[in-house]
Amino acid sequence: MSEVRDLCLKARGARSSLRAATTEMKDLALHKMADRLEGGVASILEANEMDLKLAFDSGMSATALDRLRLDENRVHSMAMQLREIALLDDPVGEVTRGYRRPNGLKISKVRVPLGVVAVIYENRPNVTSDAAGLCVKSGNVALLRGSSTAINSNSKIATFLQDSLEEVGIDRNCITLIPLTDRQSAIEFMQQDGLIDLLVPRGGKSLIESIKQNATVPYVIDGDGNCHVYVDASADIDMAISIVRNAKMSRPGVCNATETLLLHESIAKDFLSRGISSLQGVEIRGDETVVRLVESAKVATEDDWANEFLDLTLAVRVVPSIDEAISHIERYGTGHSEAIVTNDFVNAQRFVDEVDAAATLVNASTRFVDGNELGLGAEIGISTQKLHARGPLGLRELTSEKYVILGSGQIR
Amino acid sequence: MSEVRDLCLKARGARSSLRAATTEMKDLALHKMADRLEGGVASILEANEMDLKLAFDSGMSATALDRLRLDENRVHSMAMQLREIALLDDPVGEVTRGYRRPNGLKISKVRVPLGVVAVIYENRPNVTSDAAGLCVKSGNVALLRGSSTAINSNSKIATFLQDSLEEVGIDRNCITLIPLTDRQSAIEFMQQDGLIDLLVPRGGKSLIESIKQNATVPYVIDGDGNCHVYVDASADIDMAISIVRNAKMSRPGVCNATETLLLHESIAKDFLSRGISSLQGVEIRGDETVVRLVESAKVATEDDWANEFLDLTLAVRVVPSIDEAISHIERYGTGHSEAIVTNDFVNAQRFVDEVDAAATLVNASTRFVDGNELGLGAEIGISTQKLHARGPLGLRELTSEKYVILGSGQIR
Repeated sequence: MSEVRDLCLKARGARSSLRAATTEMKDLALHKMADRLEGGVASILEANEMDLKLAFDSGMSATALDRLRLDENRVHSMAMQLREIALLDDPVGEVTRGYRRPNGLKISKVRVPLGVVAVIYENRPNVTSDAAGLCVKSGNVALLRGSSTAINSNSKIATFLQDSLEEVGIDRNCITLIPLTDRQSAIEFMQQDGLIDLLVPRGGKSLIESIKQNATVPYVIDGDGNCHVYVDASADIDMAISIVRNAKMSRPGVCNATETLLLHESIAKDFLSRGISSLQGVEIRGDETVVRLVESAKVATEDDWANEFLDLTLAVRVVPSIDEAISHIERYGTGHSEAIVTNDFVNAQRFVDEVDAAATLVNASTRFVDGNELGLGAEIGISTQKLHARGPLGLRELTSEKYVILGSGQIR
Repeated sequence: MSEVRDLCLKARGARSSLRAATTEMKDLALHKMADRLEGGVASILEANEMDLKLAFDSGMSATALDRLRLDENRVHSMAMQLREIALLDDPVGEVTRGYRRPNGLKISKVRVPLGVVAVIYENRPNVTSDAAGLCVKSGNVALLRGSSTAINSNSKIATFLQDSLEEVGIDRNCITLIPLTDRQSAIEFMQQDGLIDLLVPRGGKSLIESIKQNATVPYVIDGDGNCHVYVDASADIDMAISIVRNAKMSRPGVCNATETLLLHESIAKDFLSRGISSLQGVEIRGDETVVRLVESAKVATEDDWANEFLDLTLAVRVVPSIDEAISHIERYGTGHSEAIVTNDFVNAQRFVDEVDAAATLVNASTRFVDGNELGLGAEIGISTQKLHARGPLGLRELTSEKYVILGSGQIR
């Protein structure tokens, strides 16, 4: 048997240990994990230093190096995140529906863990503890496969997490790090039918593509966020400027940041003349009208409308109507988060009804679409597909629902 | 562009027509479909006769021919099913959660159609109308790909359905039959990324395998039902006999029929001596103990424990404890429906908690696990996977949930 399969089998075998663990035990384990990470910060940073050195020598970009880098603050944040997860409600056991049938059968739908949740991720070693924490709290075995570049950091972190499980009497294999990081083993990992109940990819386009091509286990796509703000004819321009500035600039590198601004033609000039100073430092790529109105603007290419810049760049288009705005979003959007700024009741309703996305917003920044802001607590990713869960994947989204049917001898 | 892609694109383009249709319009369309199928029964049976003749000449088995065959009663049942779907609640627009955040944002989760639902199925022409009806009611475009053997029947039925849509002002492409039935086009169909939101396979192991290997669109597996009844030490033996008889014999060819009976050793002799006459006509394949106690029993092979017989065959094993029963189910079960017959409170709780399946039942027949019996109405399949939906896939399971976020200028 291959090493990947062997590890997956061992992890699957650990399910019953987590199933038997009470919420109190799981929360205690999360607190122990936080304590051990903080207590072991020196050895984590040492391991991280090794990863950074190898990555630097192999010519990794500065942005990627930054994602790989840990420091005391970042390790502290990882620990705090685990403590926050301990504070969230346990989703397991929640009865989501319950009713009695005419024949007397008592039927309930109950949240149960998925079983084994696999996560494939790149660089960021904090995903090791974030994902493990969410899995443990939701009763799922965490099967983690980080990148080769972060192997030393991830191994060290995973060992602390496993030791914490063991300390409270939970099988340490409930958190399993796959130490094989070559491409072949990644593909093998995606094909462990029957051993993995959900695969969550956290990475770029090539990872998503590889999963679509190769995975035979169920997965949720954590896709791109090409998010839009549409400023309608009736919008409060000050509010629109504030929302666009926030949606673009507060954290341009995240998926819920806005990438394209659509302006109704009747307010385009007003918005741009008053708003452009609020967007200082943002490169504007506009259509003809925008380029005419904004001196510094470059001409947007077809690619710009489809691109998730993840940077201080904003594509801007002037549209003659809300219909054109909705069509533009349908064409270029990735189904993540789409906002309208308007004071028109009918247009607000049309936008939320007709735009097909995980979240549609009226008069609010697209940046609100994440687990914490929506009140779900931490998230393991944001789904841009429609199956299973759409939007932030919190603890509830790491569960399945089981019918429990209680009878007194009923037959059909 | 290939014909498959062209048809998928046209179908996707029709989404807005269904989105704009009210529940009243959709229900009217379903009633028109039912009327047209009944009115056109002669031409449907004529088309079916052509399919049957070709299938017979090519040597199709009697069982498969029976699945392919339509008669007046079966067409009437198809019409009645459409009328029943019209009576079900429209899932679209249901608010599943709603709350206000500390910053004043009003957040709701609203059921929306998935968009385009594709169904790949074998033989049975009634799936054409059942699946189309469920899709239309839930606001989804139906993209149907039946087998080559049923192409004449399916085409005729689909035309009646499309005419009915058109009659009430809904785009006829909201029901699209893919007339290409070769293997290559099936694979192409499974890879229409971005055009298909959910693929539901209705067919045997080879179809499921092909989807796992080839599909790049999201899918739900409608898998095997290797269902078990475990008769516990404390069971009421008469009740157990009645449940086992019903679970095995009422309709052996369906997925919620029971395939293996597990008997606690303390009641095995009693159950078998009194129960075997109730199972007349059922071939028993048992372990050593069973073969000793039941004259007509054959020795069960390893394959028998794993097999979905779909026939009047029952595998029977005697177990020393509920733990062994649960282990047996974990090893051989397919996660469909698992029942315990018991009067022991602790064992009933352990069974429903520890057995991992779409449905766990206490003192009731596994045959209750279908959409109608659980009160969901008609179903498009039964999911044995844990993602998205587990158990019967009714109208609700053909929807996704969208966050609708209403603000007054909030930024982060």
